[in-house]
Amino acid sequence: MNTGKNYIGCQKSSKGNKTYKTFNPVLNQENDTIFSEASSEEIQEAVDLASKAFQEYRFVSGTKKADFLNAIADEILALDEQLIQTYCSETGLPEGRAKGERGRTIGQLRSFAALVAEGSWVEATIDKAQPNREPMPRLDIRKMNIPIGPVVVFGASNFPLAYSTAGGDTAAALAAGCPVIVKSHPMHSGTGELVASAIIKAAEKTGMPNGVFSNLNSSGIEVGQQLVANPKVKAVGFTGSIKGGRALLDLAAKREEPIPVFAEMGSINPVVILPEALANRNQEIAKTYANSITLGTGQFCTNPGLILGVKSDALNTFVNHLSQEIMDINTSCMLHPNIKKAYNLNKEKVIAQNHVLVTANYESDVPDNHAKQAVVSVDGKSFLQNNNLHLEVFGPFSMVVQCENKVELEKVIASLEGQLTGTIISDNDEISDYSNIISALQNRVGRIIFNGVPTGVEVCESMVHGGPYPASTDSRFSAVGISSIKRWVRPFSYQSWPNHLLPNELKNENLLGIFRTIDGSRTKDKI
Amino acid sequence: MNTGKNYIGCQKSSKGNKTYKTFNPVLNQENDTIFSEASSEEIQEAVDLASKAFQEYRFVSGTKKADFLNAIADEILALDEQLIQTYCSETGLPEGRAKGERGRTIGQLRSFAALVAEGSWVEATIDKAQPNREPMPRLDIRKMNIPIGPVVVFGASNFPLAYSTAGGDTAAALAAGCPVIVKSHPMHSGTGELVASAIIKAAEKTGMPNGVFSNLNSSGIEVGQQLVANPKVKAVGFTGSIKGGRALLDLAAKREEPIPVFAEMGSINPVVILPEALANRNQEIAKTYANSITLGTGQFCTNPGLILGVKSDALNTFVNHLSQEIMDINTSCMLHPNIKKAYNLNKEKVIAQNHVLVTANYESDVPDNHAKQAVVSVDGKSFLQNNNLHLEVFGPFSMVVQCENKVELEKVIASLEGQLTGTIISDNDEISDYSNIISALQNRVGRIIFNGVPTGVEVCESMVHGGPYPASTDSRFSAVGISSIKRWVRPFSYQSWPNHLLPNELKNENLLGIFRTIDGSRTKDKI
Repeated sequence: MNTGKNYIGCQKSSKGNKTYKTFNPVLNQENDTIFSEASSEEIQEAVDLASKAFQEYRFVSGTKKADFLNAIADEILALDEQLIQTYCSETGLPEGRAKGERGRTIGQLRSFAALVAEGSWVEATIDKAQPNREPMPRLDIRKMNIPIGPVVVFGASNFPLAYSTAGGDTAAALAAGCPVIVKSHPMHSGTGELVASAIIKAAEKTGMPNGVFSNLNSSGIEVGQQLVANPKVKAVGFTGSIKGGRALLDLAAKREEPIPVFAEMGSINPVVILPEALANRNQEIAKTYANSITLGTGQFCTNPGLILGVKSDALNTFVNHLSQEIMDINTSCMLHPNIKKAYNLNKEKVIAQNHVLVTANYESDVPDNHAKQAVVSVDGKSFLQNNNLHLEVFGPFSMVVQCENKVELEKVIASLEGQLTGTIISDNDEISDYSNIISALQNRVGRIIFNGVPTGVEVCESMVHGGPYPASTDSRFSAVGISSIKRWVRPFSYQSWPNHLLPNELKNENLLGIFRTIDGSRTKDKI
Repeated sequence: MNTGKNYIGCQKSSKGNKTYKTFNPVLNQENDTIFSEASSEEIQEAVDLASKAFQEYRFVSGTKKADFLNAIADEILALDEQLIQTYCSETGLPEGRAKGERGRTIGQLRSFAALVAEGSWVEATIDKAQPNREPMPRLDIRKMNIPIGPVVVFGASNFPLAYSTAGGDTAAALAAGCPVIVKSHPMHSGTGELVASAIIKAAEKTGMPNGVFSNLNSSGIEVGQQLVANPKVKAVGFTGSIKGGRALLDLAAKREEPIPVFAEMGSINPVVILPEALANRNQEIAKTYANSITLGTGQFCTNPGLILGVKSDALNTFVNHLSQEIMDINTSCMLHPNIKKAYNLNKEKVIAQNHVLVTANYESDVPDNHAKQAVVSVDGKSFLQNNNLHLEVFGPFSMVVQCENKVELEKVIASLEGQLTGTIISDNDEISDYSNIISALQNRVGRIIFNGVPTGVEVCESMVHGGPYPASTDSRFSAVGISSIKRWVRPFSYQSWPNHLLPNELKNENLLGIFRTIDGSRTKDKI
C-alpha cells in the first residue's frame, strides 16, 4: 500500500508541506495517493543517516551484501500484483512490459549479488616487499577497490523499475558498499515507494545499517539540487534528459568538493543503411525499423531517431516503405501528458525546419495521451547546417537523412553529438568499402551494432550503455552490466600494513579465495 | 641543444611574440635560451594535428605503440649529460636526483610499453550469442577499452621528468592510443624541449603519425586555458597546485562537451604517531621525519606536512627532537625564486595564526633561493577551528597538532580535506585500539602507510597516487602505475559485428593471445 511518505532510512516521514499526485495516462486522470515532497530537513536527515551508515556499510562483507541484494530481489517479487498494477497505473505501459522490466531489475540485483559474493571484483593487487632490491628496498603495497561514499540516484521516467529506485545505479552502488538516496521520479512515485519498501524490508531482514537506503519524493528540481549540493553526498547517478543531467553535472562541478556525476542522457542513435542491404531487403528493413521506432511508444534512450543513407531511388523507396509500415502500427499511450506535450513540441519544431519533408505523420484521432508516430526526411546538407535537426525527439519519431555521397555521409556522422549507439545495416561484404564511415561512427558512440536495431540493451558484462557526451557525462563508464560498479568505487593502497589488520581481500591467506594480481600474475594463491 | 621553439608535431615553430627564459636558482640568474610562447594559431595547429593523428594512432597495434614508448626511453637516455645539466640548471636539484628521476621516467615508459605489447589491458570481454535463449535470443556482444582522444598534459614544477613532458600522464596516454599535447612548464622549458625532441625522434623512427605529440611553451595561464577549452581536446592530465588544477577543472566543466580532468594536486599527508611508538622510538622517529620533511627541500606532493598525536610529555619531547633534528640538516635550494617566495609567504601565514608555536625556524643566512626549514606546533582545538592551518606549505615545513584525546584526534582527521597519503606510526599492537582513527584516516586518503614515511612513491601496479578531492579531482583513478591508463580510455561494445571486421583483440581466433573474459570466464582460449 502506498502511503505517499518518504523513507528516511527505515523511518516513514512526511514533514513537508508540498504534495503531489502521479497520473494515469490511460485513464487520463490522477492517481489517488498524495505524495509528500521531502523537506530540507528530511533531505538533511537522509544524508546524515547515509553518511553514518556508510561508516558501517563500507565494511560489510561481500556475502552479506549479496544477501541484502538478493533479499531486495525477493521482496520486489513479493510485491507481486500490487507492484505491477501500480507500475501500469503510473506509466500507461502494459503489464507485459512491467513484468519484463521487473525481471530485468531482479536479474540486475542478482548479478551484482553474485559479483560481490564471489569477491574478485575488488581487483586486489599485491606487490610484495623486496627488502634486498637495489638501490632501494621495495615496500609491500596492496591495493583494492573501496566504496566512494553515499550515492544519490535519480531514476528515469521511462524505466520505473530497471533504471529507478532499485535499478542499475542503486544495485551497483549498494553492491559497491555505498549507501543510496533515491530522488524518486515524480511520474512514478507510487512504484518508487513500493520498491523502496522492499529495499527497506530487505535491509532490516539482512541486518544492514539504518540509512543504507532512503527514498525522497519530489515533484520539482529542488530536492535533487539540495541532494547534489550536500557535502556528505559523494557521487550521483542519473538517467534522463540532457537538460536535467547537465544541470546536475554543473551543480556538482561547482561544489567546494566536486563529485563524480554519471548521467546517461539523450541519444538519437544513428543507423546507417548501406546500398546493397537497401537493394536486397528494403521492405524488411523498413518493417523492422518501424517496429523499433514505435517500440514502447518510442520512449527508449536507444530509439533509432536518425537513419542515414546515400541518396538513391532505393533510399526513397525505403522512406516510403518505412512511412507506410509505421502508419500501420497502432498508436500507444505515452508515459505522461507532459511527455506527450514535449513529444509534440519537439516533433513540430523539427518539422518546421527548412527542407524537412514529412513522409508520415499519424493524423487520425487517437485516445488520450497516445503519441502520433512520424517519419521525416531531409537532405545531408541541411542536416549539416542546422543543429535543430540533431535534437532528440523522445517518442515514436525518426528522421531519414539522404546524403549526397559517402563523403557527405561521413561528414554527417562526424558532426553528430555523442550517442549511446550506432548501427550499420549492410549486406554481403559491402561494409568493407565503408571503413571511414565505421571509424567515424565508432568515434561518436558507445556501442556499434551490425544488422540489428539499437533498442534492446542486453544486461551483460560486455555491454556498454553510455558513450561520448551527451550520451553520458563520462564515456569512461557504462550504466549497464556489472562493470558499472566502477562508477562508485575508488582504488585504495595499503603500504607495509600489518597482515592481520588488512581487509580479508588483501590478507596473505586469501581467506575469500578470490583472484588477485600478485607481483603481476593473476592467481588465487596464498602468500 | 635548446632552440626555445615549440614542437607542433615534428615541426619546430615560433610564431608568437611573447618570450621568456628559465631560471637557475643555484646561480640565481636566468638561463640563456629564449623560449617562444605558443600563439593561438600554434595552439590550434597542434590540436588539429593531434585530432588528425588520432584517427590513425588509435588503430596502431600494441606492439608498435610499445616500440614507440621504448624508443622514447632510448632517446631520452641518448640525451645523456645535456639533459642532466639542463635539468639541474632549471631546478637547482642535484645530479643524483636528476638521474634518479630519469630512471623513474624511463621505467614508466618501459612498463607501459610492456603493458600494451602484452595486450590484455584492453579488458576484452565477450558474451557469445545464445540464439536459443528464451524468451529472447542473446546477441553476440564484445567489449574492449579504446582511447578517448587527444590528451593535454600539464607537467609539474617539482618533477621535470617523471611528471612532465614524457612523464606518467604522457606515457599512459600514448600507451592508450591518445595523442598528447604537453603544455610545457615555464620553470623547466629547456628540459621539456629536450624531452620533446626525444619523443619526436622516437615517433619518426617508429613511424608514428605526425601530431601524435606536440610541445607548447607558455609562461602564463593562457596557453593552458586555450588548450583545455578547445573542442578537439578530449581529456586533461595535470600535476600541480590546487588553484591551478581547480581552474582547469572548472574550465573543462563549462565546455559545451565537458571532458575528464585528472589533476593530482596538493596534500599535507597527515601522520599519526601513537603513544607506544613515541615512548619507544621518540628520537628515531623524529630523525626519520626531519629527513622526510626536508627531502628534496620539502618539494614533494607527499611531504609530511601534518603530524598528529595525543597531548603528552612524550609528544612534547618529540616536538623538541624533531625541531633539533631538522635544524641540524643543511638547507638546500628551492626550484625557483617564486617557489621560495610562496614558501615564505605560506609559512609566515601559518606562523601568524593564533596559538601556533614555532619550535624550529632556521634563522642563519642561507645561500640564494635556499629554504629555511621550520616546525610549528598547535593544539587540536585551534586546528579544528581554523582552516588556515590546513593549508599546504610547499617546502620543508611541518606542523605538529597536539590533540586533547583520541576523540579530538579522530575529529581532526575527519576535518581534513582529501589527501594523497595518511601514515600511522605504531608499536606492538597498540594500533588495534585505534580502529576509529584508522577508519577516519582511510576515508580521507588514497594510500595508507604503516610505520614509514609518505615520501617515496613506488611505481607499481598496486600504488594509488591520488585520493579524495583536493588530493585529486577524481578519486576513482591513480596518477601512478599501469592502471593510470584507465584515465584515458573508454569501454566500447560491438554487437553482432562480423568477426573479420573486429579488432584483433576481439576476433574469435584471439590472434594476440591475450587474456579475455568469455561468458564470465577469464581465458586465453579461442572461440
